[in-house]
Amino acid sequence: MKNSLTLEEIYSPVHTGLGRVPALIRETLDTPIPKMREMVGHFFSKTGKLLRPALVLLGAGLARSIQSAGAGVPSERNETAELYLAAATEIFHAATLIHDDIIDSAPLRRGVAALHVKSGPQAAVLAGDFFHDRAIVTIFRYGNEQIVPLFLKTAGEICEGEVLEISEKKNINITEETHLDIVGKKTASLLACALQTGAFIWGLDAAKIEALGRFGNSFGIAFQLVDDLLDFTGNETEFGKTLGSDLEEGVYTLPVIRCLTSGDRDKVVRVLYSRSHSRRFPMLRDILEKSGALDYALAKAKSFIAAAKHEIEVFPPSDFRSSLEQMADYVLARKR
Amino acid sequence: MKNSLTLEEIYSPVHTGLGRVPALIRETLDTPIPKMREMVGHFFSKTGKLLRPALVLLGAGLARSIQSAGAGVPSERNETAELYLAAATEIFHAATLIHDDIIDSAPLRRGVAALHVKSGPQAAVLAGDFFHDRAIVTIFRYGNEQIVPLFLKTAGEICEGEVLEISEKKNINITEETHLDIVGKKTASLLACALQTGAFIWGLDAAKIEALGRFGNSFGIAFQLVDDLLDFTGNETEFGKTLGSDLEEGVYTLPVIRCLTSGDRDKVVRVLYSRSHSRRFPMLRDILEKSGALDYALAKAKSFIAAAKHEIEVFPPSDFRSSLEQMADYVLARKR
Repeated sequence: MKNSLTLEEIYSPVHTGLGRVPALIRETLDTPIPKMREMVGHFFSKTGKLLRPALVLLGAGLARSIQSAGAGVPSERNETAELYLAAATEIFHAATLIHDDIIDSAPLRRGVAALHVKSGPQAAVLAGDFFHDRAIVTIFRYGNEQIVPLFLKTAGEICEGEVLEISEKKNINITEETHLDIVGKKTASLLACALQTGAFIWGLDAAKIEALGRFGNSFGIAFQLVDDLLDFTGNETEFGKTLGSDLEEGVYTLPVIRCLTSGDRDKVVRVLYSRSHSRRFPMLRDILEKSGALDYALAKAKSFIAAAKHEIEVFPPSDFRSSLEQMADYVLARKR
Repeated sequence: MKNSLTLEEIYSPVHTGLGRVPALIRETLDTPIPKMREMVGHFFSKTGKLLRPALVLLGAGLARSIQSAGAGVPSERNETAELYLAAATEIFHAATLIHDDIIDSAPLRRGVAALHVKSGPQAAVLAGDFFHDRAIVTIFRYGNEQIVPLFLKTAGEICEGEVLEISEKKNINITEETHLDIVGKKTASLLACALQTGAFIWGLDAAKIEALGRFGNSFGIAFQLVDDLLDFTGNETEFGKTLGSDLEEGVYTLPVIRCLTSGDRDKVVRVLYSRSHSRRFPMLRDILEKSGALDYALAKAKSFIAAAKHEIEVFPPSDFRSSLEQMADYVLARKR
């Protein structure tokens, strides 16, 4: 199902809370040190999609809506926790992006210079550490006995995913299974964590928490598969990143992996090993398109989205559930 | 008071526990991923002084010795916690060293190539994150309601100290006060945290915990002041780091700051601004020595050591207390 909703429309059930998140991000990262203030300001000069804070608030909304059908009393502390944990999740994500961009030598982030380009790799290492610390402190302050271990587990998974990705760089025999494992750990785990965090605030039962985790995982994998597709098919200005950058770093994403296990393998290997990026990238894009590998990756993303939507059928219909379903559809249609 | 005890002799009250720490470090950092195993192996190919694990175990020993004079029952869980928290503290420290060496472009660590030189800065960023994560997970698992927030606070202080240091680089008007603030946050905070962590395991009372914190802070500042002195006066092979590296990075340590506020200011500024490192370093060393700035810094370190030793007089005499006193003297005599 295609749809043409904007993210703003999709986020409408959590519009009010989400609107407060950018100020809470600034508050959480407040520091008297000019150099760090400057880096915080640069990184958040473009806000990004706020996907993870939205998921925290939607998870919370879903859990709250079920409870209030029973005898749940709205708790001020929980409502504050929702907002700070939403901000912390975005900061946590920002920390991984800052280090990721160093690791991948990515020049652009959200259409502006990546932090390591703007402030130097040394200062950017430190900024990532600073963001991570502040996020963890906030998670510890507002989280509970389920949320804190969940974040620690997720931090470990993200790190493991990144290490795996590095160790599989330029491996022309990488399997689809390994690739999906990396994507699951590196990207999907935090999306699942965000959604579950919101729900944990309001004490959702274990079976539904699991369902949200599976939604987040499938949704997250689809999200990354489409992100990787945009690396080939996107518009650089709209996408806000440099096209072909995965390729330059030796990271082979699903379309390339698909072609490496097809009749086009030899052709693809020759292109991957050729010297000039300016020629390599369009040649590869051409092979991927003609071979159907881009279509294959999109179909894969679609099947993950279908699986994700199926998982949340256990929740009674609500604005929050609709929002998650719309978000799932949005992933398949997105251009940035 | 000079003494010629070795670290091994000083550590003797915690010898058994400390001997188990290296294996627990390996266990905590175990991973199936070859690239990360290799980095863990390289970083810990030289063990270092294990100062922080020793402080955890000494803090625990001090607290335990007071309790067992009362009605304390030795708890197996606490003894396990001591060892894992000792390992986690060293891993936590290692994570900051790895990122620090990137930030400072340091070529050597413990006499071997720094990790970013050996494995590349990108992989080293990731290794630092991985070490930090595993340390935090362990601290969360074995720590208690005092220990976890203490570590989070300390992580924030270390980060703040590093940001301050970066923002004061090449500032010829940096004050001694600011410098000591940086040293306190960057180095001393973790030494204090290590000692308090051990004591918190056994529920030491607040007043004594505070005293240990002040010991750790003064001891830690002295430790770093001597470390910075060794950057001028040490033997490169013994010290395991490149001499003059602070200077090259524009980090002005106490002897330089002292000279910058003396009659030698103009001479020092000229040397700092001169082009050639090979000439700059010996010229500066000469000025610092003749002006008495090196002696000044050593006297400062001595006064911090005296203050530190005074703090632990609240504890009844014990092997653990003696060990801390010997460690304090050792700092003034150390060559590496």
